[in-house]
Amino acid sequence: MSLAPEQKHELEEGQALTPRFGVDGLIVCVTTDVKDGAVLMLAYMNEEALRLTFETGVAHYWSRSRQSLWRKGDTSGQIQTVKEVLVDCDQDAILLKVEPGGDGGACHTGRRSCFYRRVAYADGMARLVFEES
Amino acid sequence: MSLAPEQKHELEEGQALTPRFGVDGLIVCVTTDVKDGAVLMLAYMNEEALRLTFETGVAHYWSRSRQSLWRKGDTSGQIQTVKEVLVDCDQDAILLKVEPGGDGGACHTGRRSCFYRRVAYADGMARLVFEES
Repeated sequence: MSLAPEQKHELEEGQALTPRFGVDGLIVCVTTDVKDGAVLMLAYMNEEALRLTFETGVAHYWSRSRQSLWRKGDTSGQIQTVKEVLVDCDQDAILLKVEPGGDGGACHTGRRSCFYRRVAYADGMARLVFEES
Repeated sequence: MSLAPEQKHELEEGQALTPRFGVDGLIVCVTTDVKDGAVLMLAYMNEEALRLTFETGVAHYWSRSRQSLWRKGDTSGQIQTVKEVLVDCDQDAILLKVEPGGDGGACHTGRRSCFYRRVAYADGMARLVFEES
């Protein structure tokens, strides 16, 4: 992961998109609702998923559990129309701002966001509390 | 990554925090500004970083490039006071909502967010455009 200073500068301050996929060929992607910025989900993309996302304007991911390319919404109807794609400083993370289709949700459990439980921590014990959605 | 149905149900609908660290011992964490929900950064935590985050109320991460525990802000002053911790459906991602200290930023480049470049895609070519911050 260590880079020469000129590589680092180009990566951080350049205009070239050079996504740094991990050894597993994947890059992490956080997806928010463009309407209000709510974090909907976190998923992964391989090179093909990222390319298809650009080419089609619809979010594609790589499912690590199914080990397959996944156009979000194909079964749920929650197609994500991509409004903006951002990359982070060292180009190893993607941020998608999307307009979710179908019922407007993103989580396979039926909730709007995958982050529907808050951690309540007290006296060294963590407990999950369900958020209103 | 495949789970028995009852494990999956407990993971998704239970009140027990059972973070699923990867084979590298890390879990991915997206960090937002509690003030307006802006995505500030994406980083990783090992078990110790997560525990220290709960115990101290200040965000701790694991630096993959330095291979060391990292209390965000120790050198930059951008200490992140944790206001809320959420976990996703399958408990392999964390969402931190924080109040950033110091100059209110999170990125080592001096910008507020690490996601300061938008991808402009046209005719099969991607180019990075700097966002106003």
